[in-house]
Amino acid sequence: MEDKILLAHGSGGKLSHDLISKNFLPLFRNPLLDKLDDAAVFELNGRLAFTTDSYVVNPVFFPGGDIGKLAVCGTVNDLAMSGATPLYLSVALVIEEGFPLADLQRVMKSVQSAAEEAEVQVITGDTKVVNRGSADGLFINTAGIGVVPRGVDISGASARPGDRVVISGTIGEHGIAVMSQREGLRFSGSIESDCASLNKLVADMLATGGRIHCLRDPTRGGLAGTLNEFAAQSGAGIKITEEAIPVQDAVHAACELLGFDPLHVANEGKLVVIVDRDDAEKVLAKMRRNRLGKQSAIIGEVVAEHPGRVVMETCLGASRIVDMPVGELLPRIC
Amino acid sequence: MEDKILLAHGSGGKLSHDLISKNFLPLFRNPLLDKLDDAAVFELNGRLAFTTDSYVVNPVFFPGGDIGKLAVCGTVNDLAMSGATPLYLSVALVIEEGFPLADLQRVMKSVQSAAEEAEVQVITGDTKVVNRGSADGLFINTAGIGVVPRGVDISGASARPGDRVVISGTIGEHGIAVMSQREGLRFSGSIESDCASLNKLVADMLATGGRIHCLRDPTRGGLAGTLNEFAAQSGAGIKITEEAIPVQDAVHAACELLGFDPLHVANEGKLVVIVDRDDAEKVLAKMRRNRLGKQSAIIGEVVAEHPGRVVMETCLGASRIVDMPVGELLPRIC
Repeated sequence: MEDKILLAHGSGGKLSHDLISKNFLPLFRNPLLDKLDDAAVFELNGRLAFTTDSYVVNPVFFPGGDIGKLAVCGTVNDLAMSGATPLYLSVALVIEEGFPLADLQRVMKSVQSAAEEAEVQVITGDTKVVNRGSADGLFINTAGIGVVPRGVDISGASARPGDRVVISGTIGEHGIAVMSQREGLRFSGSIESDCASLNKLVADMLATGGRIHCLRDPTRGGLAGTLNEFAAQSGAGIKITEEAIPVQDAVHAACELLGFDPLHVANEGKLVVIVDRDDAEKVLAKMRRNRLGKQSAIIGEVVAEHPGRVVMETCLGASRIVDMPVGELLPRIC
Repeated sequence: MEDKILLAHGSGGKLSHDLISKNFLPLFRNPLLDKLDDAAVFELNGRLAFTTDSYVVNPVFFPGGDIGKLAVCGTVNDLAMSGATPLYLSVALVIEEGFPLADLQRVMKSVQSAAEEAEVQVITGDTKVVNRGSADGLFINTAGIGVVPRGVDISGASARPGDRVVISGTIGEHGIAVMSQREGLRFSGSIESDCASLNKLVADMLATGGRIHCLRDPTRGGLAGTLNEFAAQSGAGIKITEEAIPVQDAVHAACELLGFDPLHVANEGKLVVIVDRDDAEKVLAKMRRNRLGKQSAIIGEVVAEHPGRVVMETCLGASRIVDMPVGELLPRIC
């Protein structure tokens, strides 16, 4: 076996088969994948959720995770945010010729660990190799399928005045962790990506019976992006309080230094939930009992005023509009 | 609006939203996509098929198609090859900074046309932009979901001695068309990619009630790759006759000139079916009545001898082993 990926590994010929059968199949062994047909076939009934994301994070390995873990958690989370129980994933690789085989193996091991932890199965995949210089190392696409339990109806368009806005923990770690790795920066206190699968946290929240209206993970665009999406989709206003938003000191310091707003920085293991006022405390209490929601906090509410806009009361007592980020602060963060 | 794609178009911020809402949504308008939640949610019951493929074809535009058409047809075909009726697609883009917006619009229009023709809906998507030099123009991943009708049970492992091997038409056009476009070669007679969605051809074949055992589209690795996969998965031998395999004269000439074996060259609108001996003529007759199967032909049979191997009787009367292609003849053909 070569120690670098060759073009022929993506040819559909003998080397492709060897790469897949020696390196990928033993990791993911399950009856659906093992058939190696063009599509995986399985029985499933009900309201299904379907989503896709491509991951182009640079560098491939960063504090707290790598592109493989990210590709599983990200798609699991997109399913979970519709209230679905994630079940099945596809994994499609675009690899640059010359990519070290050992790195690919390490990434695929991460895919496997993250899938096992989230209790999802990888059942279909694809491997393409492009010439050196035609891609940057490794890109991964994952698509996912889940089942939405009866009675669950969550959408970014369902926020109503009076609802409470809850975040599941501190914001900004993922973006800062990837960027500091890429740029070789060091901050006092190590900042690790929060990359994690949130499906079990969501299951806990749903189990409370609390009326959950909107649910989303604030990835690219950060908390500001997600809240603006909710406001726009629901035609409602959102009011948040800066003081209530949990941010790690190290992230705060890094953002100050670099001129970033933590509200705009990507997260990969956090969710924002908009919940009926009367159920907010119940849902919050349950979230805090989950390992991934310990620092959950109510950070604001949905209001009838300024529909489509997010307004923040700052630590200084002033009000400011929280805009959707316009440019690209941190390219290739996921 | 800029006339080139910027990094900020992939930021998850304002420019991302503008790109998607102005350029993509109007093309694909459907209630599932229009909700713009993290996952599309729909009711579906039964035996489902799920598949994924990433497309990295170079160049993006080639005679007979482009990366957008290819990304739809390829995934529709992977679903159809499991006997499924394709229903839903995801479309995930990785775009290189600086890619012309007009080209992206043209590709997405192709995605829309191909989806409409195949009667599938694009219901979820993703857009990432990477720095100039970190990808080559545009890569597209499509994943797809379909429903397998009751009673249909097709797998590459189901070939039995006595079964007939049928190809749905001439081989090798796609690979030669892409390569000649890329290398600026001209052959007498224009060679166009055969890129097409085969789901309706498969539906016609299933409607005959003929016992279809294996079905696959011979893309990367060509006809030789697919037949070797069937032989390996089924633990049977396959015997084919060179004379019976339809090849366009221009493709033949191009392959001779370039030293390629048409059996190794990729197709994107052809299928290979292994069918019970007694049903072969019935299925073949039906295939020939479909626009995409006019030149269908029986090219061989499954045998008990040489299990796992494909053997061809050549035009000269000799027998030779048809190997799985080993290296990479034509990188980035799909």
